[in-house]
Parts: sequence; structure tokens; C-alpha cells
Amino acid sequence: MYGLIGKMRVVPGQRDALISILIEGVSGMPGCLSYIVAQDPTDPDAIWVTEVWDSQESHQASLSLPSVQQAISRGKPLIAGFGERFETKPIGGHGLAAPGNAA
Amino acid sequence: MYGLIGKMRVVPGQRDALISILIEGVSGMPGCLSYIVAQDPTDPDAIWVTEVWDSQESHQASLSLPSVQQAISRGKPLIAGFGERFETKPIGGHGLAAPGNAA
Repeated sequence: MYGLIGKMRVVPGQRDALISILIEGVSGMPGCLSYIVAQDPTDPDAIWVTEVWDSQESHQASLSLPSVQQAISRGKPLIAGFGERFETKPIGGHGLAAPGNAA
Repeated sequence: MYGLIGKMRVVPGQRDALISILIEGVSGMPGCLSYIVAQDPTDPDAIWVTEVWDSQESHQASLSLPSVQQAISRGKPLIAGFGERFETKPIGGHGLAAPGNAA
């Protein structure tokens, strides 16, 4: 599996809008086992995205999906920058839902 | 929701053992929506744990569960230290499975 942990800095006042865009765009991405968008409680202009994919290839391929392309173009103007970014190799746990699952 | 992103440094050679202990201990924790254990691909002695709970109280309560207490006592000798630690406020996404779900 392939994982990403990343912090995004958001244009002030646009955090809720960016979070909605990101969450709307995540459904039905082949190979996506987890994609969670969170507020940073210590910074009103920052969010965290944690992702798990069945492979790095699936993640890479998702970037060309129309829904993701649309989210990127809608979200880009709201992104002020990027903070910490860690790649991981998830081994297991709870909450790794295949795309089709309702979870 | 309440989230945690944390890095653990592991006693050299014990990463697989610690990962197994952590993954074994995660099933059926009330309020746990996601608990994923991953290797750090850049450091053979480090792991990342990303968690999402329905509340901080659920997370706190989980620490007294027998299964978690057991995992902590088995895992403690294998933990060499802690790295980055970020608290988050998850808003939504994919892969947030209520404990009962098979995911």
C-alpha cells in the first residue's frame, strides 16, 4: 500500500471551501482505501490530508480522473502553500475501505 | 471528530513486531473510525500511526481497554521514542469506518 500525510496552507477564510472541494472529489477513486481531510486545530488556515492507496500507481492515476482534475482546478486558487509532507507504506489497521464500500 | 498523526521510533529490528502488536490491538475500539499503521519508507526504525475517532473522549477511553492496555505493555519495550505528533480535527473523506464495519 502507499500512503501520504500532508499539510496544506489555505488562503485565509477559504478553509471550509477547500475542505468541501477535497471531500467532494474523493468518492469512487479506484484504489483509494482512505482519504481523510482534517482541520489543523492550531492553525485556522491549515488542513491535513491523510491518504492510503492500494498502490502508488493508483494514486498517480487518480490525478488524471476528471473528478480529481476538477477538484484541483477548483481548489488551486484556495491553496496558499504546502507544509509537512510524508510518504508512508501502510501495513494495516482499521478503516481501510475499498472504494465501493459505503464507509 | 478527533484525529492524531504520529511518528514512533522503534528499537532497531523490532518494527514488524511493533506493527503487528498495534494492528492486532485496534479491532473493536468504540468510536475508532480509522487507525492505520504504516512504515516510514525513509527510516527502517520508524512507523506512522494515523487515527480518527468520533471524539477525543473515545480516544481517551480506548487507552483503558484491556486490549489496548495489553498492546501498550507488549509494545512499550519496542518503542525507542516519538517523533512528529499532530492533533487534527477530521471533517470527512473516505475510509471512516464505524468499528462494527468489516473494513
